Amino acid sequence: MVSEKTSLVAVVMGSDADMEVMQICIEQLRDFGVEPKVRIISAHRTPKIAAEFAENAARNGIKIIIAGAGMAAHLAGAMAARTVLPVIGVPLVSPSGLAGVDALLSTVQMPPGVPVATVTVGKAGAKNAAILAVQILALTDKDLRAKLARFKKAQQKGVIEKDSALR
Amino acid sequence: MVSEKTSLVAVVMGSDADMEVMQICIEQLRDFGVEPKVRIISAHRTPKIAAEFAENAARNGIKIIIAGAGMAAHLAGAMAARTVLPVIGVPLVSPSGLAGVDALLSTVQMPPGVPVATVTVGKAGAKNAAILAVQILALTDKDLRAKLARFKKAQQKGVIEKDSALR
Amino acid sequence: MVSEKTSLVAVVMGSDADMEVMQICIEQLRDFGVEPKVRIISAHRTPKIAAEFAENAARNGIKIIIAGAGMAAHLAGAMAARTVLPVIGVPLVSPSGLAGVDALLSTVQMPPGVPVATVTVGKAGAKNAAILAVQILALTDKDLRAKLARFKKAQQKGVIEKDSALR
Amino acid sequence: MVSEKTSLVAVVMGSDADMEVMQICIEQLRDFGVEPKVRIISAHRTPKIAAEFAENAARNGIKIIIAGAGMAAHLAGAMAARTVLPVIGVPLVSPSGLAGVDALLSTVQMPPGVPVATVTVGKAGAKNAAILAVQILALTDKDLRAKLARFKKAQQKGVIEKDSALR
Amino acid sequence: MVSEKTSLVAVVMGSDADMEVMQICIEQLRDFGVEPKVRIISAHRTPKIAAEFAENAARNGIKIIIAGAGMAAHLAGAMAARTVLPVIGVPLVSPSGLAGVDALLSTVQMPPGVPVATVTVGKAGAKNAAILAVQILALTDKDLRAKLARFKKAQQKGVIEKDSALR
Amino acid sequence: MVSEKTSLVAVVMGSDADMEVMQICIEQLRDFGVEPKVRIISAHRTPKIAAEFAENAARNGIKIIIAGAGMAAHLAGAMAARTVLPVIGVPLVSPSGLAGVDALLSTVQMPPGVPVATVTVGKAGAKNAAILAVQILALTDKDLRAKLARFKKAQQKGVIEKDSALR
Amino acid sequence: MVSEKTSLVAVVMGSDADMEVMQICIEQLRDFGVEPKVRIISAHRTPKIAAEFAENAARNGIKIIIAGAGMAAHLAGAMAARTVLPVIGVPLVSPSGLAGVDALLSTVQMPPGVPVATVTVGKAGAKNAAILAVQILALTDKDLRAKLARFKKAQQKGVIEKDSALR
Amino acid sequence: MVSEKTSLVAVVMGSDADMEVMQICIEQLRDFGVEPKVRIISAHRTPKIAAEFAENAARNGIKIIIAGAGMAAHLAGAMAARTVLPVIGVPLVSPSGLAGVDALLSTVQMPPGVPVATVTVGKAGAKNAAILAVQILALTDKDLRAKLARFKKAQQKGVIEKDSALR
Repeated sequence: MVSEKTSLVAVVMGSDADMEVMQICIEQLRDFGVEPKVRIISAHRTPKIAAEFAENAARNGIKIIIAGAGMAAHLAGAMAARTVLPVIGVPLVSPSGLAGVDALLSTVQMPPGVPVATVTVGKAGAKNAAILAVQILALTDKDLRAKLARFKKAQQKGVIEKDSALR
Repeated sequence: MVSEKTSLVAVVMGSDADMEVMQICIEQLRDFGVEPKVRIISAHRTPKIAAEFAENAARNGIKIIIAGAGMAAHLAGAMAARTVLPVIGVPLVSPSGLAGVDALLSTVQMPPGVPVATVTVGKAGAKNAAILAVQILALTDKDLRAKLARFKKAQQKGVIEKDSALR
Repeated sequence: MVSEKTSLVAVVMGSDADMEVMQICIEQLRDFGVEPKVRIISAHRTPKIAAEFAENAARNGIKIIIAGAGMAAHLAGAMAARTVLPVIGVPLVSPSGLAGVDALLSTVQMPPGVPVATVTVGKAGAKNAAILAVQILALTDKDLRAKLARFKKAQQKGVIEKDSALR
Repeated sequence: MVSEKTSLVAVVMGSDADMEVMQICIEQLRDFGVEPKVRIISAHRTPKIAAEFAENAARNGIKIIIAGAGMAAHLAGAMAARTVLPVIGVPLVSPSGLAGVDALLSTVQMPPGVPVATVTVGKAGAKNAAILAVQILALTDKDLRAKLARFKKAQQKGVIEKDSALR
Repeated sequence: MVSEKTSLVAVVMGSDADMEVMQICIEQLRDFGVEPKVRIISAHRTPKIAAEFAENAARNGIKIIIAGAGMAAHLAGAMAARTVLPVIGVPLVSPSGLAGVDALLSTVQMPPGVPVATVTVGKAGAKNAAILAVQILALTDKDLRAKLARFKKAQQKGVIEKDSALR
Repeated sequence: MVSEKTSLVAVVMGSDADMEVMQICIEQLRDFGVEPKVRIISAHRTPKIAAEFAENAARNGIKIIIAGAGMAAHLAGAMAARTVLPVIGVPLVSPSGLAGVDALLSTVQMPPGVPVATVTVGKAGAKNAAILAVQILALTDKDLRAKLARFKKAQQKGVIEKDSALR
Repeated sequence: MVSEKTSLVAVVMGSDADMEVMQICIEQLRDFGVEPKVRIISAHRTPKIAAEFAENAARNGIKIIIAGAGMAAHLAGAMAARTVLPVIGVPLVSPSGLAGVDALLSTVQMPPGVPVATVTVGKAGAKNAAILAVQILALTDKDLRAKLARFKKAQQKGVIEKDSALR
Repeated sequence: MVSEKTSLVAVVMGSDADMEVMQICIEQLRDFGVEPKVRIISAHRTPKIAAEFAENAARNGIKIIIAGAGMAAHLAGAMAARTVLPVIGVPLVSPSGLAGVDALLSTVQMPPGVPVATVTVGKAGAKNAAILAVQILALTDKDLRAKLARFKKAQQKGVIEKDSALR
């Protein structure tokens, strides 16, 4: 049984419509044996919950917050404003957005003093956010380091096999 | 003596570096006889003050919040998330920003349900935010309506005089 | 029976092709009990009607004009040039347009002195224009203020329920 | 003495600040012996004058309207909405604008049925608008055709001389 | 029988794949009773034919060249380099292009001295190119002027009818 | 005396021309008592050194690599390809670059499996990279956590003091 | 039988998902009788193989490397960093990318000293990369020069036939 | 004495204003002992000369054409349309242009069948065009290959020395 209390990584997203993409992030974390706390929290619709979540995250054992949002994507920044934990931002492509460019700039262009670690737009970013979180956790977790090494080798092997199949 | 309590319009900005541009907004409001409450509040560096300010704005007699910010400009959105007052966003050009495009998209691309009334990027926007605020107040203020009519005529006259000077 | 004469909000759009998106705006207004005057008026094809509409809007009891247009979207600006009422611009995505970026810049980048309150591109903007209009009307309408408060809570509740459903 | 009544080309601009660039257009026209009617008319600040000017242009002997404007540049489009004369739009770079991209898209992206003949952004466009106007007039003016041929040769010669100077 | 020799307007395009969109231009011209000379000529694949066509266009009775092209759209510019006739450029959206932005910039950003009258990207531009050509021809053709006036009224009527249908 | 061997953070940049901006990163790290290993290594001019550096970084005690580069900024990605350490990318504005947009996209748009934690373009990013690195180190360093808390408070205090000075 | 050892052109791509587009390149090369060495090599997932491939390419008889990649497309640059052979970069459109703009800027904006010969984004670029490679080989291969001349004529003929079919 | 007839590389540019940047290209070629034929030829102002130059280039012993141009940069494409020699395009930043983005897209987005080998925008591109040309020539010139190897080492050494100087 996975206890929520022990989650080291939180995956928050602004809307359940973001789940389709953020599920990639969640599954990638689980592949590394990292069970995230998953929350739907909106910087604009549930700002108090967002504030409380970020302010209490460290106290609740969270080490890293991954926030996925589209359009004027403030969620990661709103989290980063209220915690000294590393916050990873995933800019999402919204049907009403401008192909993810709005989300990218709203996420990455944080003012001096309040960083958001921004990853690729969309699905690739959802996956990369998970891996970046694991890389951070692995700095003090030998087991995760070993898993990351295997993951990197498996990635490499995947490319090599497809390359070999060509010949 | 201008009493702060009676300010109907608040002009907030994320940094004192924004004052140079936002001063245009403040002076335009004063030209209409509207003395704003002016505050430096950062969505990212003083998020609690930003939250409290927005939550209490209506109670404190504020009718309209004008928020100027650059880069990943979340200030107007953070205000709009916490009040049902109209919030006007002025996207500012920051030296570290991307020519104001980042601020524009971060301000205007708000998700459904939480509008920010976005005006022109930079100085023109600072002036326009003031006029938009006055237009809103003028809906129930005959005196302001008369001033706006005079302002519009003066603008018109300015163009006509320059046009005449050509001939 | 809804009397047109009593409409406080006008929703104008450049073409009936815009109705699909602007319908969201109209319905959102109706949800707040605000019955808009809806018009198809083109800044470029019926410029005189556009001019007359804007010039007479205040006299006809209109308080706020919402204008939706795509491409070189001049409709909101053409209205704003001829009235001191607040004008809200919704940049629309046209099949012949550049993903809404052309409409966004044509709507928001108004010169100093003539603001257009610009909202999100597309459907989210159609909804947000309605809410912004209600926020303005609510400044002097207790009933609308109460409705807005309920709307904000319902939004919040929607997020919270989806968040709870995750667990 | 140049009589205004006989001007075949009108050069209008939204503000006297645009004169620095539009002067290039005026001088280029004069180099071809075409004395333009020059006007400062704003689509947003003097919309009635803009409307009247465009509506009466043909009657006043104008054949071609050149309109230079920056930001949400509606001037050329506002003219084109009210006349069947060819309208040439020069997108200008404004200090408050987005490097001319806003003016370019606001000028060129006209809806079907209402064309604006858009030229290069800024100074090059001011010159090109004049030449385009002369090209149109030259269709029924042998003298102008000859001048255009000489202009084209002189341009060519200029390049050839600089090329020769290299060797 | 339509005689090619008498065509006053040429419609050239870089590829038969462009015909789907440029057909709108051709039909709009025909609606005005202007039968165009239609050619597939590529600035990059048949540059000599392009050069000859442009150099001989005036001699062959052509008054206006409309050129539609996508991507690094040089066709209009290549024509303009070789004639003093007005050249109208239609930036097309290509499957391999960047949503028409590449074609727009390649068409409109002509150097000083060699204008291309650029219209809207894509289908709207194809239609507008035809109307712009007619507007130019109408300067010395009373019949076309009358047709343009009727066209403008019909456009207007179309909007008014749709507006009326709303009520 | 600061021993290089004990550096937990590496700051690498592609050229000594980048030092002016990256110095902000170095100094911010030092303010937190984190002495970085600073290297000039180019992904394109010294690719072997870049490869060796990244491959050996973990073994050499490095926990986090900060890479600043402009234009087709591959440095952070080249590092990330060869290590499982977290890599932070700072997109720099180069005189030959496209205002930092090229560097931003080249840094952030990493393929799935190989994340780069991208921060703000330019000077703000240089500072934010340092803070993000400290946030990561602070996950297992109480002293750094306390320093970060003080830093956040000092930031807050700076804003509050400027806000107070207004009144 | 085609011997790999004799391939003068290498076509490398970052993923088998790129094969659909890069196949166009391969087939175009074969049409010219140039059998490429085709490899799937990722700058980010198999960086060592990428390095070795580029370092040994000249020794293995390769004259030209064509590299296709999307998003933060480093493959061509990573090759160019390690060889003095000409490297041709094809920016690809990825489902997770920004319409190919990210790949274009990541490929073309190489720093001084390390060029990548960048071609059109996507399918047109895949074809053009092949032709550019053949143009380079043809400098010292009479047979290929003749084939290129025929290819150019066939292209021309294709346009001429479609042009003729119109009449 | 350098004989023009023996030049293997041509450096053409659209205007003498481009010389400041293209001089970097010329000098870089000379550093490799490659004396270029330098010409000022405009695709738009001297199109016949451009056509003749490209058509005769191969016959005149030219192996590679480097073309630098700004704005709607057609020069490289106009050359590529008329020769099967490799054409290298340098997109230049013009004072009247859009920061080089217009030149980049006009140069690189060539249609299938007519490649232009596009390099970095501006000065870095001027240098890179020279090196790319040398890389192509070096395919059949041992001496140039040796020089390129030395150049690459010198570049590397430059970085290493600056890196060492840090310590």
